[in-house]
Amino acid sequence: MPHITLPDGVPGIRGLFEFRPDTAKPLCELANTLLHAPNTLTPGERELIATYVSSRNDCAYCQDSHGAIAAHHLNGDDELVLQVKRDFEEAAISEKLKALLAIAGKVQRGGKTVLPEDIDRARKQGATDTEIHDAVLIAAAFCMYNRYVDGLGTTQPRDEAMYRERGKRVARDGYVSVSKEYLPAK
Amino acid sequence: MPHITLPDGVPGIRGLFEFRPDTAKPLCELANTLLHAPNTLTPGERELIATYVSSRNDCAYCQDSHGAIAAHHLNGDDELVLQVKRDFEEAAISEKLKALLAIAGKVQRGGKTVLPEDIDRARKQGATDTEIHDAVLIAAAFCMYNRYVDGLGTTQPRDEAMYRERGKRVARDGYVSVSKEYLPAK
Repeated sequence: MPHITLPDGVPGIRGLFEFRPDTAKPLCELANTLLHAPNTLTPGERELIATYVSSRNDCAYCQDSHGAIAAHHLNGDDELVLQVKRDFEEAAISEKLKALLAIAGKVQRGGKTVLPEDIDRARKQGATDTEIHDAVLIAAAFCMYNRYVDGLGTTQPRDEAMYRERGKRVARDGYVSVSKEYLPAK
Repeated sequence: MPHITLPDGVPGIRGLFEFRPDTAKPLCELANTLLHAPNTLTPGERELIATYVSSRNDCAYCQDSHGAIAAHHLNGDDELVLQVKRDFEEAAISEKLKALLAIAGKVQRGGKTVLPEDIDRARKQGATDTEIHDAVLIAAAFCMYNRYVDGLGTTQPRDEAMYRERGKRVARDGYVSVSKEYLPAK
C-alpha cells in the first residue's frame, strides 16, 4: 500500500505525477530530454542504461517500464534487455555502450566511484563528452526516480502487457506527450 | 579535474548547466519547485533536508551551497546547519522536521528502506501527505544532483564567501532566476 493517498489504479510514478503535477512537469521533461530527444546515443541505448540502473536499485516498476521501452526500440528483443541486466559485459551490444554502462553502474553506487580509467575506457570506444555526460546524468536521474517510486511505496503491478503497451506509446510519442494528462495545463 | 571539458571557473553543477542547457532547464525547475516555491514547509526546512542528504552522500559542493542557502533562510544560523548534518535528532528543530529528515535519510540509502513506522512518526507530528511526498522527492532528487556533480568530477572550491554570496541570491530569487544565464533562451 502506498505511504500516502494516491489515485487508485494509477501505478508507479504515474500516481505520483497525478498527485503532484508541479513536480511531474520537470520530471517528465528531464526524462524526455535524456531518453527521447535526438541524441548520438540511440533511444534503445539510453533506455538500456535507465533499465540497468533501475535493476541495480531493485526498482520493479522502473526496470519493467523502461525495459519494455528499451525492448520496443530494440525490435522486441526482450532477451537482450535481460542480458544487459544480468551481465552487460557479455551482451550483444557495442563496446562503447558497455563502457557507458560500466560508468552508470559506478554512478549508481556513488558519484565518487567514477575514476579516470572508467572515462578513458569510454573515450577509447569513441564516446564523446556529451555521451559521457548523458550516461552519468541518466544513471543519476534513475537513482532519483527509483527512490521516488519505491520510497513512497507506490503500487507496482507485475503486468507485462501493460508495460509493453505503454512502452510502445512512450517509445513513439515521448515522456511529456504520454504523461500530459497529469501535467499542469499551462 | 573534471572528467569532461567544462567551462573554466564555473564550479559544481553550474559548469554542467553551462555544458548542457537542455538538461539544466528541468533540473533548475525541479529544484525551484521543491525548494523555493510556496510550500507549507519553509524554504529553510526544505534546504536543511537537501543539505542533510548531500552530506550523507558526501558531496562537498551540494552540502556547502545548500547549507549556505539554508543558513541564509535561518537568519545566518550556520551552527544549526552543522548540527542537523551531525545529528539532527539533537538539533533545535521541530519534531516534524526531525521525522521528515529521518525519512530523507532512509531514502538516501534506498527507497525500499522507508517503512510504515517512519511515515507514522511523521504523521503523528502533523506532517501532511504533500509534506511527506516532498521530503521523499527532495531526498531522491539530491541523490541525483550529488551523483551528477561528483560523477563528472566537477571542481568544488572550498570557498565559504562564494557559497554565502550565491546562497543569498538563490534564497531571494530562486533557482531558475539565478541560473538563467545557463538556460536555453526560449
